[in-house]
Amino acid sequence: MPNTKLEKVFRDPVHNYIPVSNQIIYDLIGTTEFQRLRRIKQLGTSSYTFHGAEHSRFTHCLGVYNIAKQITEMFTKNYPETWNPEENLVTQCAALLHDVGHGAFSHTFEGVFDTDHEAITVNIITDPSTEVNAVLRKVAPDFPDKIASVITHDYENQQVVQLISSQIDADRMDYLLRDSYYTGATYGEFDLTRIMRVITPVDNGIAFKIQGMHAVEDYIVSRYQMYMQVYFHPASRAMEVLLHQLLKRAKVLYPTQKDYFKLTSPRLVPFFEHNFTLSDYLHLDDGVMTTYFQNWQTHPDEILSDLSNAFINRKLAKSIKYDSADEKDLEVLRQIIEKIGFDTDYYTAVHSNFDLPYDLYRPELQNPRTQIEIMQKDGTLTELSELSSLVKSLTGTTHGDNRFYFPRDILSPETLFKAEQEDFVSYIKNDHFLGKKRP
Amino acid sequence: MPNTKLEKVFRDPVHNYIPVSNQIIYDLIGTTEFQRLRRIKQLGTSSYTFHGAEHSRFTHCLGVYNIAKQITEMFTKNYPETWNPEENLVTQCAALLHDVGHGAFSHTFEGVFDTDHEAITVNIITDPSTEVNAVLRKVAPDFPDKIASVITHDYENQQVVQLISSQIDADRMDYLLRDSYYTGATYGEFDLTRIMRVITPVDNGIAFKIQGMHAVEDYIVSRYQMYMQVYFHPASRAMEVLLHQLLKRAKVLYPTQKDYFKLTSPRLVPFFEHNFTLSDYLHLDDGVMTTYFQNWQTHPDEILSDLSNAFINRKLAKSIKYDSADEKDLEVLRQIIEKIGFDTDYYTAVHSNFDLPYDLYRPELQNPRTQIEIMQKDGTLTELSELSSLVKSLTGTTHGDNRFYFPRDILSPETLFKAEQEDFVSYIKNDHFLGKKRP
Amino acid sequence: MPNTKLEKVFRDPVHNYIPVSNQIIYDLIGTTEFQRLRRIKQLGTSSYTFHGAEHSRFTHCLGVYNIAKQITEMFTKNYPETWNPEENLVTQCAALLHDVGHGAFSHTFEGVFDTDHEAITVNIITDPSTEVNAVLRKVAPDFPDKIASVITHDYENQQVVQLISSQIDADRMDYLLRDSYYTGATYGEFDLTRIMRVITPVDNGIAFKIQGMHAVEDYIVSRYQMYMQVYFHPASRAMEVLLHQLLKRAKVLYPTQKDYFKLTSPRLVPFFEHNFTLSDYLHLDDGVMTTYFQNWQTHPDEILSDLSNAFINRKLAKSIKYDSADEKDLEVLRQIIEKIGFDTDYYTAVHSNFDLPYDLYRPELQNPRTQIEIMQKDGTLTELSELSSLVKSLTGTTHGDNRFYFPRDILSPETLFKAEQEDFVSYIKNDHFLGKKRP
Amino acid sequence: MPNTKLEKVFRDPVHNYIPVSNQIIYDLIGTTEFQRLRRIKQLGTSSYTFHGAEHSRFTHCLGVYNIAKQITEMFTKNYPETWNPEENLVTQCAALLHDVGHGAFSHTFEGVFDTDHEAITVNIITDPSTEVNAVLRKVAPDFPDKIASVITHDYENQQVVQLISSQIDADRMDYLLRDSYYTGATYGEFDLTRIMRVITPVDNGIAFKIQGMHAVEDYIVSRYQMYMQVYFHPASRAMEVLLHQLLKRAKVLYPTQKDYFKLTSPRLVPFFEHNFTLSDYLHLDDGVMTTYFQNWQTHPDEILSDLSNAFINRKLAKSIKYDSADEKDLEVLRQIIEKIGFDTDYYTAVHSNFDLPYDLYRPELQNPRTQIEIMQKDGTLTELSELSSLVKSLTGTTHGDNRFYFPRDILSPETLFKAEQEDFVSYIKNDHFLGKKRP
Repeated sequence: MPNTKLEKVFRDPVHNYIPVSNQIIYDLIGTTEFQRLRRIKQLGTSSYTFHGAEHSRFTHCLGVYNIAKQITEMFTKNYPETWNPEENLVTQCAALLHDVGHGAFSHTFEGVFDTDHEAITVNIITDPSTEVNAVLRKVAPDFPDKIASVITHDYENQQVVQLISSQIDADRMDYLLRDSYYTGATYGEFDLTRIMRVITPVDNGIAFKIQGMHAVEDYIVSRYQMYMQVYFHPASRAMEVLLHQLLKRAKVLYPTQKDYFKLTSPRLVPFFEHNFTLSDYLHLDDGVMTTYFQNWQTHPDEILSDLSNAFINRKLAKSIKYDSADEKDLEVLRQIIEKIGFDTDYYTAVHSNFDLPYDLYRPELQNPRTQIEIMQKDGTLTELSELSSLVKSLTGTTHGDNRFYFPRDILSPETLFKAEQEDFVSYIKNDHFLGKKRP
Repeated sequence: MPNTKLEKVFRDPVHNYIPVSNQIIYDLIGTTEFQRLRRIKQLGTSSYTFHGAEHSRFTHCLGVYNIAKQITEMFTKNYPETWNPEENLVTQCAALLHDVGHGAFSHTFEGVFDTDHEAITVNIITDPSTEVNAVLRKVAPDFPDKIASVITHDYENQQVVQLISSQIDADRMDYLLRDSYYTGATYGEFDLTRIMRVITPVDNGIAFKIQGMHAVEDYIVSRYQMYMQVYFHPASRAMEVLLHQLLKRAKVLYPTQKDYFKLTSPRLVPFFEHNFTLSDYLHLDDGVMTTYFQNWQTHPDEILSDLSNAFINRKLAKSIKYDSADEKDLEVLRQIIEKIGFDTDYYTAVHSNFDLPYDLYRPELQNPRTQIEIMQKDGTLTELSELSSLVKSLTGTTHGDNRFYFPRDILSPETLFKAEQEDFVSYIKNDHFLGKKRP
Repeated sequence: MPNTKLEKVFRDPVHNYIPVSNQIIYDLIGTTEFQRLRRIKQLGTSSYTFHGAEHSRFTHCLGVYNIAKQITEMFTKNYPETWNPEENLVTQCAALLHDVGHGAFSHTFEGVFDTDHEAITVNIITDPSTEVNAVLRKVAPDFPDKIASVITHDYENQQVVQLISSQIDADRMDYLLRDSYYTGATYGEFDLTRIMRVITPVDNGIAFKIQGMHAVEDYIVSRYQMYMQVYFHPASRAMEVLLHQLLKRAKVLYPTQKDYFKLTSPRLVPFFEHNFTLSDYLHLDDGVMTTYFQNWQTHPDEILSDLSNAFINRKLAKSIKYDSADEKDLEVLRQIIEKIGFDTDYYTAVHSNFDLPYDLYRPELQNPRTQIEIMQKDGTLTELSELSSLVKSLTGTTHGDNRFYFPRDILSPETLFKAEQEDFVSYIKNDHFLGKKRP
Repeated sequence: MPNTKLEKVFRDPVHNYIPVSNQIIYDLIGTTEFQRLRRIKQLGTSSYTFHGAEHSRFTHCLGVYNIAKQITEMFTKNYPETWNPEENLVTQCAALLHDVGHGAFSHTFEGVFDTDHEAITVNIITDPSTEVNAVLRKVAPDFPDKIASVITHDYENQQVVQLISSQIDADRMDYLLRDSYYTGATYGEFDLTRIMRVITPVDNGIAFKIQGMHAVEDYIVSRYQMYMQVYFHPASRAMEVLLHQLLKRAKVLYPTQKDYFKLTSPRLVPFFEHNFTLSDYLHLDDGVMTTYFQNWQTHPDEILSDLSNAFINRKLAKSIKYDSADEKDLEVLRQIIEKIGFDTDYYTAVHSNFDLPYDLYRPELQNPRTQIEIMQKDGTLTELSELSSLVKSLTGTTHGDNRFYFPRDILSPETLFKAEQEDFVSYIKNDHFLGKKRP
């Protein structure tokens, strides 16, 4: 494959330098679809909680590429018998492009408008109208499909698939280190160098030599910690809830106010109408969204303008935890909130975040996980949790919580609704909804 | 002054934790004018060169506040005779707000639309319509004016002014560390802890104890290095040049196409018309600007759409250095470029970046600098460059370069204009314009 | 208490700066007993495995002091009702001195010569002959006894005791961070700043606010990882085994060769004779020991000279893991080794290292552990493992391994004893002794 | 050349991992002469000032090897036309061994006993009695001589010589980073990765591509800062002065007390007698020296025992700066000190430390420096200081100071010699000896 005339280098605070010497990779980075990732934050609403974490998906994708490049080059040098060097470019392109279909505030946006960033990633790669596709076709006519099949896990060589998407892959390794660096939450740090030294291709998959077992264990624990402390942070979820309500309200208003929305938020119209093209999707980014929300701040609908204002100025709802079994009892809280004048459809919400930190391969599931294999000195493979009691304790069990969000005012010392406040507070202890446990 | 009920903490990757226990500070952070800083990148176009540096002015302002807070608390504890603790809140508010008037891509924007972010900072602080002003007035009716006078350097107590704005102030100390952290360019690091230990209030100013002289020296050198290697990077300046040409073109087109611009870029209209309010200004941010540039990508004017496209997709012009004395000889290059079909008004540019790393107090100047004073063991003050040959070598001399920007295509191996390319190249040696030195 | 005229500062790579402004603390650091800690490595034989970890107990003790100082100052400021500021100096002195009785290669030395570093710590503090005691007596006649009782856990105020010695104390917090820094093994890092923010004095003990629960959890996991990967490293234990055999051999030879040992290793004589004073003990350090071992390298006893040589030049035995149940079956391995000519008393050894990462308070035990208490929002205390499944998985179970050490030569490709080698290897699989599982 | 069966890895806090796959390198590390470096501190007496910096020459030598290995491997891959890969092993061995002749507290020891660590390095490499020589001879009979000639700068290929010893070499690059890491003084940090990317072999030397000019400039400034702030620290020099006086005193006493010194410090005897072998030299290390000083603490000679005690317990003399021109006027201070009872031969001293941070090649000098060459885009070389005003300011001028050391007691508030104190103090202002400037 052709090399760039001069090796280009991207200075990166996480990986120090990211060198690019392959012209295909360099051209992919220059495409309009990839450059667009500069305008989409990696952590969405989390940057409103961890103010340092304003980095974009662009930086993350470069980082994933860099890890994949280093691993595939090491495989090429050290494992000529189990790794086919022709997979290098496939792996590196898939690594670079794995998130190219992400949109602004993806998670919430997908919930409201029924989009799917993974399908769009595949679309960007395979649709002949994109610059990404044009670059990939320069390698071979079927090269875009190859890359797409890595994204969908259908690529024949599961070594490649696992490097891009498994319980320990280039994607996760970069985002843990990167999100840790940018948030300042050090829990996400782990020994990448050691893992890169012990990762090894095996028959149709990857494994990790026993000498690095503790580094892999540490990675699993770090990932768990980042979920608990960063990704599931109640304040970020308050922003997600707000965004969801805000878009929901606009969608409700749209049918009767089409002209208004066409003027103030033209690029959202295809989504309100449930009829969008790839090009429509690619025109959205964080800046476009917040520009529209700013426009909506003066809309006469009080709910829309109020929620827009709350989002732009980060006025967060409060929340308490509740047990799943108590979910239907939350009604009593909604009634109090309604009593003091809030529309509970837009001013309360439940939000659940749970993660399964690690799991075994369970063939009976629809999407069984690839378990992490540790290679013993004599070459035999042992599943990770058999060797690590720490990992065992995180295996097969989900971690997270359910939260009920409600207006901050109900708990304010300045509230005019003292009786309702007292009533509301009687259902809470240590930030938990008491539900049936209420005395 | 009232404290928040609970100390709030902002997790910050540079300062680790930034605690806020004063309610005024907390309320200022919550104002719409301050939250707006989340939507404006600290380094403007530099994030297109140093992809990791996507941090906002919001994070920087919190950091400056944090440094000012630590210094003023230390002063209060250690220097009751030379520091008045009533200045603490003044200093901290001024630190937090010193950049609140910054806008999207300020430097370039100001060049095209004749705005002034410092004047706007003062405006935000003193105009009764702002939330910032309302919070400040809670302290005292004249408190906003006090803060404003610190920004304009007119505040009587020059200790406070120097902490916010001098050759070694809380602002510079934070941005060097922060930009260093986010770009990954380690040159900006210096020993903040030591400087914070040796900084001391003196009669109407600040000084640094001799034990920390080398830390101060190192800070000056670090700042110089950041200018040379990060802030003056040719690629970032290519983006600035592009932005400037793009806005200039829109301004030229506006008078004949008002409807188009009102529809696609409404919030820029007051600036095209040279008639904007504070509110107009506050509605602009990075996201609004890039949304508009994306709109303009389909404008029928080829120059506007092409430049918009180049900005959005980071298609950079190339550049060479030139000596000031050769500036008028650049005409010969412009002629070649014109010959191959480019409008040189929009496709070439000169861009000069020079910094004076450090200087003595020179009362004859309009804005004389406050020189850095080192306090000897017996309390006498000595100007820094007298003690440091490193600093002396940077004193009173500017550093930087002049660059001529031109279309990348002229140097491309695939150009169709081989003769013009050859001609063009004959004027260049080691990325310098030969000018009169041409053989 | 009197302050030093000027605050002294110790530059420390882990804590950045360690300021000392109390004259008692400063004088304690200057005592001959404390300065002696500069000559004793913190990690003993581990520096032969992790070559970067050559730091002394002196640096660690300063670090523990620094953590204790920060906590007690924070307590004094924030918890006037539950913390008595008169405990500050007690706590800080105990922190500084907690390891002052450590000797060269303590762990192994104690095994051979039946010394006890904790008893000696108490001795140094309370014996009127020491400089440490003289400094402490300047505070009050009973002050040395107070400090000693903190060391022995008998001090009435259990808050102080727990800060110095519990499952999360200033000692452990410093050594994890420090050993992590110096070995380069990042597993020991945790969020000290956050823990210092949430630690809180409660009725006769300390607790940690719920907001910092994950930081405490992360600390427990970090400690576990350091044990598994650094403190229990097989190569360091090979050096310990060697040291043990070497001292054992000298002790055996001593009765018949007193003159030789008095000449070449005079300061060990009181220990060979089981009759040593505090002063004898304080004359030993790492340098004295290695000087003597170098002297012994030329002793005519082949075992003594060979083992001395092996220690000085780091010639390590190899090892395999074995299950406790198989311990007596190791005899078969010893027989093979004896067959090829090694004295198995000196050239083989078993070495077991187990740690209990965390445990509940179990009053039925002789030395029950103080469990870690998390303080809920309403002030109630909950034991840590009830809130953390990670910690629960490490609670009450020991982690580590048993290892059998044997001469490296038996596995060498150049061995002359091929048949014995083959026999030996047949008992091993993946570095484990097969014992009864042997096919 | 033969590889080790398995790549060995040394975990290093500065370079993260140092892999060794060449058997010769691995065997050299295992030699008794190289292992001895574990017992000699890299920074000698500086660890008494910067308590964290207790790292040994062993760690530094591994680090230099690691840098040399990375550079030579990069040269082999990227510069097949200007770099001969047969130089790789030569360069790496020379890097590893460049300091193998260092002894305990070398600088001071050499001053007293007239030894020369560079000559001894050559000796260790070329003397057939050493293990180092035996390993090197396995490569080729003349291989030891080759390595030795690199050390003495006589090796024909000056590329190799410059990598090991020039104004920017593997040695300096490692020690700046390492001493910075261990002291905690961040001034020594520079961008090693970038320098390693731009270093390039040229005709009989090395150069640095213009893209890395600022990294090289930063390295020069970092080195300067480390000299000023760490290596020339007055407290470390106080320990050097003490050590010098102590050894001088022992040397004076030796002729009349040979039996005493043979018993208490046998391995120093050959040096007292000025008649030592290589083996004698190799038996000395930090531990041996401090063991002897502890022995001398009870010597009846008051000066010897007092100085020994001062060294062991870090009782430092104080110092003031003086101008060279005032040196002979110091006599007046010595007279005061003598008046209050000190032997000024042993209790006062002058100590000068000067460094030339960077210089041009000056062929007229006996040991001209190799200047640093920057390679322009077109391949021409430009000397560094022509491009950098920072470096220019440090070129050809020495930096440092002269200090006069004297007993701490003369300045003590508790002194019994008030009149002498007053007299003494009248000669000092801001820690400078006033000399002729005295009013």
